[in-house]
Amino acid sequence: MPSVLVIHGPNLNLLGTREPEIYGYVTLEEINRQLKGLAGELGLELRVVQHNGEGEIISAIHEAAGWADAIIINPAGYTHYSVAIRDALGAVNIPAVEVHLSNIGAREEFRQHSVTGAAAKGQISGFGADSYLLALHAVKYLLEGRR
Amino acid sequence: MPSVLVIHGPNLNLLGTREPEIYGYVTLEEINRQLKGLAGELGLELRVVQHNGEGEIISAIHEAAGWADAIIINPAGYTHYSVAIRDALGAVNIPAVEVHLSNIGAREEFRQHSVTGAAAKGQISGFGADSYLLALHAVKYLLEGRR
Amino acid sequence: MPSVLVIHGPNLNLLGTREPEIYGYVTLEEINRQLKGLAGELGLELRVVQHNGEGEIISAIHEAAGWADAIIINPAGYTHYSVAIRDALGAVNIPAVEVHLSNIGAREEFRQHSVTGAAAKGQISGFGADSYLLALHAVKYLLEGRR
Amino acid sequence: MPSVLVIHGPNLNLLGTREPEIYGYVTLEEINRQLKGLAGELGLELRVVQHNGEGEIISAIHEAAGWADAIIINPAGYTHYSVAIRDALGAVNIPAVEVHLSNIGAREEFRQHSVTGAAAKGQISGFGADSYLLALHAVKYLLEGRR
Amino acid sequence: MPSVLVIHGPNLNLLGTREPEIYGYVTLEEINRQLKGLAGELGLELRVVQHNGEGEIISAIHEAAGWADAIIINPAGYTHYSVAIRDALGAVNIPAVEVHLSNIGAREEFRQHSVTGAAAKGQISGFGADSYLLALHAVKYLLEGRR
Amino acid sequence: MPSVLVIHGPNLNLLGTREPEIYGYVTLEEINRQLKGLAGELGLELRVVQHNGEGEIISAIHEAAGWADAIIINPAGYTHYSVAIRDALGAVNIPAVEVHLSNIGAREEFRQHSVTGAAAKGQISGFGADSYLLALHAVKYLLEGRR
Amino acid sequence: MPSVLVIHGPNLNLLGTREPEIYGYVTLEEINRQLKGLAGELGLELRVVQHNGEGEIISAIHEAAGWADAIIINPAGYTHYSVAIRDALGAVNIPAVEVHLSNIGAREEFRQHSVTGAAAKGQISGFGADSYLLALHAVKYLLEGRR
Amino acid sequence: MPSVLVIHGPNLNLLGTREPEIYGYVTLEEINRQLKGLAGELGLELRVVQHNGEGEIISAIHEAAGWADAIIINPAGYTHYSVAIRDALGAVNIPAVEVHLSNIGAREEFRQHSVTGAAAKGQISGFGADSYLLALHAVKYLLEGRR
Amino acid sequence: MPSVLVIHGPNLNLLGTREPEIYGYVTLEEINRQLKGLAGELGLELRVVQHNGEGEIISAIHEAAGWADAIIINPAGYTHYSVAIRDALGAVNIPAVEVHLSNIGAREEFRQHSVTGAAAKGQISGFGADSYLLALHAVKYLLEGRR
Amino acid sequence: MPSVLVIHGPNLNLLGTREPEIYGYVTLEEINRQLKGLAGELGLELRVVQHNGEGEIISAIHEAAGWADAIIINPAGYTHYSVAIRDALGAVNIPAVEVHLSNIGAREEFRQHSVTGAAAKGQISGFGADSYLLALHAVKYLLEGRR
Amino acid sequence: MPSVLVIHGPNLNLLGTREPEIYGYVTLEEINRQLKGLAGELGLELRVVQHNGEGEIISAIHEAAGWADAIIINPAGYTHYSVAIRDALGAVNIPAVEVHLSNIGAREEFRQHSVTGAAAKGQISGFGADSYLLALHAVKYLLEGRR
Amino acid sequence: MPSVLVIHGPNLNLLGTREPEIYGYVTLEEINRQLKGLAGELGLELRVVQHNGEGEIISAIHEAAGWADAIIINPAGYTHYSVAIRDALGAVNIPAVEVHLSNIGAREEFRQHSVTGAAAKGQISGFGADSYLLALHAVKYLLEGRR
Repeated sequence: MPSVLVIHGPNLNLLGTREPEIYGYVTLEEINRQLKGLAGELGLELRVVQHNGEGEIISAIHEAAGWADAIIINPAGYTHYSVAIRDALGAVNIPAVEVHLSNIGAREEFRQHSVTGAAAKGQISGFGADSYLLALHAVKYLLEGRR
Repeated sequence: MPSVLVIHGPNLNLLGTREPEIYGYVTLEEINRQLKGLAGELGLELRVVQHNGEGEIISAIHEAAGWADAIIINPAGYTHYSVAIRDALGAVNIPAVEVHLSNIGAREEFRQHSVTGAAAKGQISGFGADSYLLALHAVKYLLEGRR
Repeated sequence: MPSVLVIHGPNLNLLGTREPEIYGYVTLEEINRQLKGLAGELGLELRVVQHNGEGEIISAIHEAAGWADAIIINPAGYTHYSVAIRDALGAVNIPAVEVHLSNIGAREEFRQHSVTGAAAKGQISGFGADSYLLALHAVKYLLEGRR
Repeated sequence: MPSVLVIHGPNLNLLGTREPEIYGYVTLEEINRQLKGLAGELGLELRVVQHNGEGEIISAIHEAAGWADAIIINPAGYTHYSVAIRDALGAVNIPAVEVHLSNIGAREEFRQHSVTGAAAKGQISGFGADSYLLALHAVKYLLEGRR
Repeated sequence: MPSVLVIHGPNLNLLGTREPEIYGYVTLEEINRQLKGLAGELGLELRVVQHNGEGEIISAIHEAAGWADAIIINPAGYTHYSVAIRDALGAVNIPAVEVHLSNIGAREEFRQHSVTGAAAKGQISGFGADSYLLALHAVKYLLEGRR
Repeated sequence: MPSVLVIHGPNLNLLGTREPEIYGYVTLEEINRQLKGLAGELGLELRVVQHNGEGEIISAIHEAAGWADAIIINPAGYTHYSVAIRDALGAVNIPAVEVHLSNIGAREEFRQHSVTGAAAKGQISGFGADSYLLALHAVKYLLEGRR
Repeated sequence: MPSVLVIHGPNLNLLGTREPEIYGYVTLEEINRQLKGLAGELGLELRVVQHNGEGEIISAIHEAAGWADAIIINPAGYTHYSVAIRDALGAVNIPAVEVHLSNIGAREEFRQHSVTGAAAKGQISGFGADSYLLALHAVKYLLEGRR
Repeated sequence: MPSVLVIHGPNLNLLGTREPEIYGYVTLEEINRQLKGLAGELGLELRVVQHNGEGEIISAIHEAAGWADAIIINPAGYTHYSVAIRDALGAVNIPAVEVHLSNIGAREEFRQHSVTGAAAKGQISGFGADSYLLALHAVKYLLEGRR
Repeated sequence: MPSVLVIHGPNLNLLGTREPEIYGYVTLEEINRQLKGLAGELGLELRVVQHNGEGEIISAIHEAAGWADAIIINPAGYTHYSVAIRDALGAVNIPAVEVHLSNIGAREEFRQHSVTGAAAKGQISGFGADSYLLALHAVKYLLEGRR
Repeated sequence: MPSVLVIHGPNLNLLGTREPEIYGYVTLEEINRQLKGLAGELGLELRVVQHNGEGEIISAIHEAAGWADAIIINPAGYTHYSVAIRDALGAVNIPAVEVHLSNIGAREEFRQHSVTGAAAKGQISGFGADSYLLALHAVKYLLEGRR
Repeated sequence: MPSVLVIHGPNLNLLGTREPEIYGYVTLEEINRQLKGLAGELGLELRVVQHNGEGEIISAIHEAAGWADAIIINPAGYTHYSVAIRDALGAVNIPAVEVHLSNIGAREEFRQHSVTGAAAKGQISGFGADSYLLALHAVKYLLEGRR
Repeated sequence: MPSVLVIHGPNLNLLGTREPEIYGYVTLEEINRQLKGLAGELGLELRVVQHNGEGEIISAIHEAAGWADAIIINPAGYTHYSVAIRDALGAVNIPAVEVHLSNIGAREEFRQHSVTGAAAKGQISGFGADSYLLALHAVKYLLEGRR
């Protein structure tokens, strides 16, 4: 059964309890629960981590190299400047899907460009918690080698 | 059964036969066939159009106002400057999903910013033909009001 | 009796029914009715067109060359990038008035600059439907050669 | 009878006698005479001031708060940098119309953006002395609450 | 006999009758007559179209795919923003020559960069109507495979 | 018989032997041989120089003032910053054609703008060695005063 | 007893009566009253002026040279462009504290940079009327030479 | 007694011993001692942390959510790019005061803009160690709800 | 005897007593004394004013229209943004010489560009108090019509 | 014997095993082995660390203050935005050499500028693993005080 | 008798015979004759050179180090990019006056900034041939050490 | 024995005698003596040239093509704009090392970017005269093919 690493970036642990007008009312736990449910349906194994530290996210990406078939990552605030995370994604040989809860293209100018996203296979943004579920579908398609 | 309008923008009629190293080997017909198959599974009705003209795309968006529950749009080259298409999406009261075959964030600088995407609910890019299928899943989630 | 061509650009056909908080509650038909009423008072003949396509707007400008004494144009979304419409206005020998419903100088940065406006005689923006009526007054002044 | 304050900004006292190829041959006195004539027709009372100093213009705007129903202002050179005048217009609760003799969008790059205009209800530019007359019509429409 | 498609972009139908100080006094018909004369000398077959619409130009490029050995295109105003035309030129497998009547590098800043030109084999600008004739010579050289 | 000065800029002496994937396999000698052949056909006399130094190119332009009817110049690397060569071309009263082997609009961003080209009559780029031959045709047309 | 000059810039005379959602409900008189109260507690003498004119603010700074031990200044709209006020602060040998009611770093882009602030000892912004009181504490610390 | 979290960012542990010409001669310990003294006077309880890591600062902000009534933060080098810290401040519902020892508006260009400051209630910079004491006064005012 | 108006801009009244490392040790009075001495030698009559207010400088320029043959102006801080002073210089038909004590091209970036200078005949900067004397020589040359 | 701290930044632990076309085939262990060999020859003692976290790199720099005579640092991805690491290098009184495996000036635009490098004594880039060896030579020269 | 080196940059040898509407009708010889006349009056010895090559200008500056008391230089086209000439002026210990015939601040944007001027003592521009004479006066003042 | 060409760019002949606070007290002769000493140790033959002219530097690079195994170049002022030297380095098939005495990344903004460096194998900057010695070590490593 293919394995997928889900990385939640900084501040996502607060999800659902704060600023719901931007990020929605679903908690991170609820997202993880939904993700695991869908993963079961799609025949994917899931490991989920959340880190506030840039270095920890980089290390998590490195460690995935031994076992993960795909990475789903929401770099949150790091999205807009972390060349180091971008390089980590580029360094490991695992397809990645970048996920954003909000449509970053519709927010403040400094949030519209993703530095990390260029190292991902693709990007999904704007669907709230469903962005993660869609990323799981995307992983499924990627692993099926449908294209 | 909810209805979805799929709008393929300029040059997408040539898909699969040209520049497959960027856009993949799947033809537009094949994409439409896959889309219809998945729409059937998801209980969605589909109408698909392809237009090279900006005005025609705008008119297609307007006409959707009477019947469509969601729009999936790949504005292709217009993505990067068409304020007019952005305004059309903003003017009709239908949730839209913007789709790109390639990961536009990983291409030439002038392709990295989407002018039209800010008027969409969300964006999906980089999964080749599967970007469209994921958009259909996204529509399904949107219409289910899961969030 | 001098003749005036009024060109409504893309999405203006939806006026009044959507996004009234930005563009007001008056429909395009109502604007046209008011325009015709004022034109009668001012002794001006009016032809009114609405086009979503850039090429159609350009062609409408060309066709005006044979009969119109002035053009009133709201290029809407095309305002911000259409060098082609700017060139069309520059190519025909007819004074033009550019009109905007909203005060574009008070909106998003990308809406603050008018590419097309440099080819017009003058610009009027921010007065909602009245922007059009003021443009008709402006045409009257221009044709009277009061200055 | 509604009252309107007309503020002519710096250098406008020289109008008509200098650089007529840009600003026209009409003197400020002649413009004021025409303005008063039209005001009479439209049932508006007019007070007209001209100031070269930024602080004086700001004070004039403040003083209008007690009596004026609308402001017509040509900030001239201050248009392009006076955040202080912009703030003055924003601070008083009186609708303002910004006026320019020339089409500032067709001049040097540093003249194409109006800092002050964002605090006005709308802008009229490019019709020479008639820009002022059109502003008076605009005030009339604004006060009639036609929209 | 090799075939060449000549595409005249927006407003070029007005050539020779307007703004001759920039674009010269030769009409489009006269240019086409000269082009056909030279084509005969060089052993090339010519089809000539003029379109004001961006979508129509794109479609014309697509249709050339079946029969044309080379494209000569003057995108006019679209030169400076049409990613969609650029993509069309990139999508069909036909060498293209971009032509401009004026030396765009010597005009307003916004006209100095060609978005479409990067998808062409080469560019010729500044020789008025002769730019087209030189493009025909260029096609001849390209097809002779002299390099 | 009209005389033409051909100026090859810096590094062009190495042509054909190095980086042929960008600049082609033709040597400068071969280009000069082809140029002389075509010049004979077109009834033009040719003098050809190659200089690596900016000052020498400027002096060559000055010296042309006494005898040359046209200049063909490939400023190579100097294209992108030499205001001094631009001024030299502007100072002498001889029509010039700027030539580039590669399509500079399709290369690195810093190569896409020509500083010198604004002082030329026109520009030809992207046709490899044929760019020079086309420039000779262009000179022929210019001297014939066909337009 | 050390003396402090407090300079309120343009439009601050309107404080409390207008746009309270941005600038708070406290009037300038109330602020001055609070300032005087706190000055008494801190053993500081206060002179307070308000000017709409840039030149008057500059002159007030000059005049302070003879008697003031510190300046508290809110340049308001002039903050963002007045090199002249910056130079005045730099020219007199008196430590200054720049004060803003709102957090200018959280407002429109053109309000985020302070031109004048570089000539001050320090800046305090975002605490509404309390920004002034904090500035008085800052002056106290500065004069105590606690660091 | 209200509680305040003081967060010293990266490199501040070295304070007083290095580069005193920019940051002053006071050590971090001395600042903390002064802060505690003043906190006692003002009736505030203080917890103080210093972190070099971005993720640790974010976590410290999160943990404050349970107990702190206000945050005083000097993000030091992170000030200029840490969207992640900005988001952390925005995510917790605690008023924050951003503090800088030096007047960042008077330093190198890349230090003049604060990315994090927009999520704070207000900013205080340029008063050396006293900036912290002023921040404590600011917290006092904020908690007193004086405005 | 030709008349010259010398306008000293904001803060120049403080000259010589402050920041002499940038502006030199000569007082404004001493400069005026030297100017009058040299004016006598050159047969020029001098009137000298100093204003801190932008509006007052503009009015001084206007008033010169009746009697002055030339203007020498040091706009000081206004140099870098005062479109209004630039327009005043452009509006009166009197040749002007812009003067700066320091070499503004060698100072902070925001001081390197002169907005007002484009409306002057020429500029002299960097010679301290001698810049004024050189400006008087320049006026002499201008009035002699030596070129 | 002088001591040198070598800091390898994020992702460098993966060296040699991934993306060797950019970073070479040498592993970090092999580099460290070579470094130690050369250190022995040059009479330098070496401590080597690798950190993915920005805060950990900062702390490593701080800790070096007690014992290291020089620092060799490859900040990798942090090079381009870490003001915090730049400040750490500036805060400790130890000469540093910044090292890059690739020639960052020849890579993507966002990699061409080093934020951290300004705080180093010098920079060495582009020689692959040898960049580190050269840095060791550089340290040797620095410590010899040869200049 | 103090010695002055006058360096005329590229294309200035053509002065007076071409583009007189920008650069005036005076030839370089005539300027040199006037310069020598004034030098005699002022008690200055003059050597004059003209070079089209950047390297030759640099060498001329170097050679001046042995004998010249001042340099007058018009770098012409090199003004806007020659860091090498700027460095040459900075490297020799001789005060320099940069001269321009036209008011470069009133010309094309790329001519408004002087790269070389920052290394000069001062700049004089816009007075045509008289700019040189004024530079000689400036040298006189500089050598007199009047300030 | 491998041969190395060392090219010293403009103004480097003045080294050691001027501006030693930036460039050090070592003369070019001393550097060359040290270089030759180290070259002997490393088994490398050296030829050294110094040129002030851009064209001469380009020609020196060309001439190296016949005999040199590596180039060490300090383009000095040309570093920041000479596309022509960059192209020369790119055109010859010889590895080059770019050298700077100062750490250009820590100087004025316009000195921070190297145009020429992208065509070199690597860059070494900031070690004063030792930068050259390190470049010789770098050449040794390059020729040993150690990587």
